[in-house]
Amino acid sequence: MNPLLGEFIGTTLVVLLGNGVVANVILNKTKGNGGGLIVITVGWAMAVFVGVFTVAASSGAHLNPAVTVALAVAGKFPWANVPGYVLMQMLGGMTGAFLVWLIYRNHLEQTADGDTKLAVFCTGPAIRNTFSNLTSEVIGTFVLVYGVLSMASPKFGLGALNALPVALLVMSIGVSLGGTTGYAINPARDLGPRLMHAILPISGKRDSDWGYAYVPVLGSILGGVLAAVLYSLG
Amino acid sequence: MNPLLGEFIGTTLVVLLGNGVVANVILNKTKGNGGGLIVITVGWAMAVFVGVFTVAASSGAHLNPAVTVALAVAGKFPWANVPGYVLMQMLGGMTGAFLVWLIYRNHLEQTADGDTKLAVFCTGPAIRNTFSNLTSEVIGTFVLVYGVLSMASPKFGLGALNALPVALLVMSIGVSLGGTTGYAINPARDLGPRLMHAILPISGKRDSDWGYAYVPVLGSILGGVLAAVLYSLG
Amino acid sequence: MNPLLGEFIGTTLVVLLGNGVVANVILNKTKGNGGGLIVITVGWAMAVFVGVFTVAASSGAHLNPAVTVALAVAGKFPWANVPGYVLMQMLGGMTGAFLVWLIYRNHLEQTADGDTKLAVFCTGPAIRNTFSNLTSEVIGTFVLVYGVLSMASPKFGLGALNALPVALLVMSIGVSLGGTTGYAINPARDLGPRLMHAILPISGKRDSDWGYAYVPVLGSILGGVLAAVLYSLG
Amino acid sequence: MNPLLGEFIGTTLVVLLGNGVVANVILNKTKGNGGGLIVITVGWAMAVFVGVFTVAASSGAHLNPAVTVALAVAGKFPWANVPGYVLMQMLGGMTGAFLVWLIYRNHLEQTADGDTKLAVFCTGPAIRNTFSNLTSEVIGTFVLVYGVLSMASPKFGLGALNALPVALLVMSIGVSLGGTTGYAINPARDLGPRLMHAILPISGKRDSDWGYAYVPVLGSILGGVLAAVLYSLG
Repeated sequence: MNPLLGEFIGTTLVVLLGNGVVANVILNKTKGNGGGLIVITVGWAMAVFVGVFTVAASSGAHLNPAVTVALAVAGKFPWANVPGYVLMQMLGGMTGAFLVWLIYRNHLEQTADGDTKLAVFCTGPAIRNTFSNLTSEVIGTFVLVYGVLSMASPKFGLGALNALPVALLVMSIGVSLGGTTGYAINPARDLGPRLMHAILPISGKRDSDWGYAYVPVLGSILGGVLAAVLYSLG
Repeated sequence: MNPLLGEFIGTTLVVLLGNGVVANVILNKTKGNGGGLIVITVGWAMAVFVGVFTVAASSGAHLNPAVTVALAVAGKFPWANVPGYVLMQMLGGMTGAFLVWLIYRNHLEQTADGDTKLAVFCTGPAIRNTFSNLTSEVIGTFVLVYGVLSMASPKFGLGALNALPVALLVMSIGVSLGGTTGYAINPARDLGPRLMHAILPISGKRDSDWGYAYVPVLGSILGGVLAAVLYSLG
Repeated sequence: MNPLLGEFIGTTLVVLLGNGVVANVILNKTKGNGGGLIVITVGWAMAVFVGVFTVAASSGAHLNPAVTVALAVAGKFPWANVPGYVLMQMLGGMTGAFLVWLIYRNHLEQTADGDTKLAVFCTGPAIRNTFSNLTSEVIGTFVLVYGVLSMASPKFGLGALNALPVALLVMSIGVSLGGTTGYAINPARDLGPRLMHAILPISGKRDSDWGYAYVPVLGSILGGVLAAVLYSLG
Repeated sequence: MNPLLGEFIGTTLVVLLGNGVVANVILNKTKGNGGGLIVITVGWAMAVFVGVFTVAASSGAHLNPAVTVALAVAGKFPWANVPGYVLMQMLGGMTGAFLVWLIYRNHLEQTADGDTKLAVFCTGPAIRNTFSNLTSEVIGTFVLVYGVLSMASPKFGLGALNALPVALLVMSIGVSLGGTTGYAINPARDLGPRLMHAILPISGKRDSDWGYAYVPVLGSILGGVLAAVLYSLG
């Protein structure tokens, strides 16, 4: 498969399954309503697992502009390929969010609260404080990228289970570092769905909180680059 | 072991353990009453794990008519063997549901609500809307079959752990895409137990909701075929 | 290590960790009070993981008289070694229960209900019905032993992760089949700690429910033997 | 990477992610508030997974003075290297706690209860009883170190998944043996963050409970040494 198509499909799967679990837990009348943080964090971890094993062979499964940029900074990915990867990741994030809307739109209608509807698409701060929120996203993405760069490969390929360590790493970041901002740690996961929230017809929706939109984007890029630099020094 | 016997045993195990966890969580006076979505989704994932590793060597462990048909469409399984596989899967689904009834029948008696009793056997929509419900089952099964087709094999067999990726894939679909219809994504898991609900003596049971029965069957077949076609193109 | 010592240490660990998680969840004033079924079933699964990987190399890690007897029936373990294994498993079960008492005895004192205190040591039926309860234990142990006999080995040893499939199998049985009797599926896990409940000084304890004690013992042996016979035919 | 730097980075990650999950679950207004024991124990297990796979190749990933001392007692680590390892582990524990404070300090401010604030940093007994609390820490660390010493290595390296068994072992100890004292089982995880609690500006904080501080330190060292001695005899 073409690597760009791989990035598109993989990111679509991650956001479909990741934003899907949020929809299941927070929207009204779903089977998973009130399932709690364990369901959300397991859901995101497994979303990454599925997205990564599905396209690892074609694109390397970055599925995250912060990862792509950080790998370029670390000299492990050609800068020339960065724009194409990032574009496909953003399109994948938008497509995944569209599919979540398609599946859960009856439940979006049954949910009155505009903040809850927005949370199906993108992250928001538990306590709004730009410096703290940025710090959270920087540290969360730092752990993600530093972890990815530090992972030893198995002596012989484990097939789909090669994707398990990064899924568990995302699980760890989610339960431990996600308490403040909801761990975007990926611009494609946050900005792509936020655009879809703005575009899609959702009755009773609030604004898409554009004032916050730069925080997860900037924070995740900064955290990823910082990790790449420190890893290269270490 | 004969592959047909393998499909029968494997599907029996999946439905025994999968429907069993639903019974444990939703019926009255069980040890697991109120255990929540995390228990149900872990239960179904582990049910698939056990069913698959038990019979993978004999039948390839499809355990799902949607998977069997999709593999035939993709040219990876002979069409001539499809009817036998599907028959054994349906019989396995019915046998698994019978065993769940055998184990939990005292608790079925202690549960007054007919909808709850039915939910031990088969899926139903959170919000009844044929198009939306079909869409959910199509997308859920698409992810299942596309994921299965995309899984790389380990360089050397991992034994029973070869079954872990598909179990985690089912976990992902359950928490993320199961919020609307309860993720049948398998006709044998839904239609087989629904037949048993109709047949078995269950005091105070409601009708078996035959008007909905075609949705998970049609949706999962459509989703599986769509995945096979797109995968073949990709 | 001597295999008999291995069985003793492994079963001690399983019961220490398995009964320990029950104590943590159901006794008053613990950190895990009210943690729910997911904690209990994960706890038992990980207890088996730890017990099995610790002694697998020395004794094969049966850690369960039902497994030992079933393996003998299947011709995979010499009958002459059965009594020694079973004795060490029973002693291990008692020792594990003693250690749980040692750790949690302040919390046993802070818990008034005698049924709760007993449940820290051994299983009991959610609805008392000898035939149903026996059926549950037979089917639960059948799945355990049939699963163990069906597990393919990895091409090359995975080290401690060789113990993961059986741990996940126990997880599956716990969430899906444990709703009626609490899934003893192991005489050493039930009878050994029940003896300790009778012997140890526990203020305000109820009787040890000896009328029920034969159900998990008989049920698990029957289920294991049935699995061995059917597996040998299959 | 230099082994001392490895111990520092690995322990920083473990405490950042481990204490982070506690903060997420117990502090006010976090996304994970009230997530329960399953989230905390999964969080600590994954914290160990991430810390271990990140630095296993450089330092062996002890990340715990009790492990380092026990390995020295067992003759598997040179005594001369113990002081350096322990120092870096303590500094890592302090750094991890500092980062948790940095991320969650707005939520610390929104939480009135001084005991809750302290619990973000270090462990405390559910029922204060020196002998019982010491016993808990001794047995918990015994299981940790005995388990680590007993783990078979895979025939061929599994890459980052080599770190999974110890993570699951910590999961087991947490759910099963953590109910009384919160399973410090690691002086760097308890004493390091306790020092940071004393040093950092935290409005409305209580004293750092120095009277209890020796229990997790002494208990974990004793438990680790006991395990090393018994393992060497076994």
